[in-house]
Amino acid sequence: MLARVSSTPTFKRLPRAVREQQMLDAAVKVFSRRGFHAASMDEIADDAGISKPMVYAYLGTKEELFVACLHREGTRMMEAIAGAAASDLPADERLWRGLRAFFGFVGAHRDGWAVLYRQARGEQPFAAELATMRGRLVEVVAGMLDHALRAKGREVRATDLEVVAYALVGATESLADWLADHPEADPEKTATRMMNVAWLGADQLLRGITWHPPAG
Amino acid sequence: MLARVSSTPTFKRLPRAVREQQMLDAAVKVFSRRGFHAASMDEIADDAGISKPMVYAYLGTKEELFVACLHREGTRMMEAIAGAAASDLPADERLWRGLRAFFGFVGAHRDGWAVLYRQARGEQPFAAELATMRGRLVEVVAGMLDHALRAKGREVRATDLEVVAYALVGATESLADWLADHPEADPEKTATRMMNVAWLGADQLLRGITWHPPAG
Repeated sequence: MLARVSSTPTFKRLPRAVREQQMLDAAVKVFSRRGFHAASMDEIADDAGISKPMVYAYLGTKEELFVACLHREGTRMMEAIAGAAASDLPADERLWRGLRAFFGFVGAHRDGWAVLYRQARGEQPFAAELATMRGRLVEVVAGMLDHALRAKGREVRATDLEVVAYALVGATESLADWLADHPEADPEKTATRMMNVAWLGADQLLRGITWHPPAG
Repeated sequence: MLARVSSTPTFKRLPRAVREQQMLDAAVKVFSRRGFHAASMDEIADDAGISKPMVYAYLGTKEELFVACLHREGTRMMEAIAGAAASDLPADERLWRGLRAFFGFVGAHRDGWAVLYRQARGEQPFAAELATMRGRLVEVVAGMLDHALRAKGREVRATDLEVVAYALVGATESLADWLADHPEADPEKTATRMMNVAWLGADQLLRGITWHPPAG
């Protein structure tokens, strides 16, 4: 198989999974350049070197293709974060490594982030796909906080952890937007800034220090 | 004038500003119920008790009307926050009152938030209007942090303050989304949770405590 592919490297001989990745590469590039509405299936097919009917056959309509792009980019991002934030590290180092991986990913894909993510935020069914991805990220962060608390023999209600995780994920997305808009900004410096907000807050929470409204 | 209006309260006699508010009330209601794409100008005109050509004459196309709704709701929200967070209070109390006003506003307008805000996020030209509003909020928060720092005789670079403010605004938006999706959740309790993230973090920052990446 390998020998045959390398001796006659035509698209026809490539396995389905490889061709799908080529189409997705082309689709991410074209969606990032043109935006979802202006992007054409012709341009995507051209860029992938595959006929348009074949793109439809493999990945469906333009909408389905966009969801597939979101899904792949989101999965890659989650893998980068999860790979960096191994669970045997102390909580601050896990958070730091996760944030550095995240902002590194966004910094390396500023165009893709700006277009894929921002477009997906407001439009169905993309917003639903994005909400699912965000939900997974919230679970990961809440799990991490829970793990750190239990290591200190403490426990916090699941809803409270979920809400803190939502806040941290929201803060991180907001800074990712900022980073995408500032090509001169350094991803690692941005991760450090986020740690200053997230960790110094989370650190106090993990110590059992909570804020209470003033009386009256 | 007033006497004439109250003796013959027909729509014809109402001043332009009052009629515009009626149309915006109707538009917010219909956009919240139907979403931007499905909302019809007929329904908005019906609901406002004004003819459709008159709605176009006053407020323009459906797109312009949506932007006007966003603008009015955003301004109301900013007024609620700014009114609550008077500048002679200590920083934590300003933040707390601002957050309580914000989550109170979202809690009282869950449908409007969910539809207006979420739709606006992803679609031009609404996303641009929302970015302008977010920019103003970031400036307010950065100014508040700057004020608190200067009161302690300290100074932080404007970019750092802006980034922290972006993170806080992003965290707050994320929790507002959570609140809109949880009709049983209490806005005040949500504001307290946000304080636990935002203030305990900001408090350390204001003390000059910053986080540094581990060596290596």
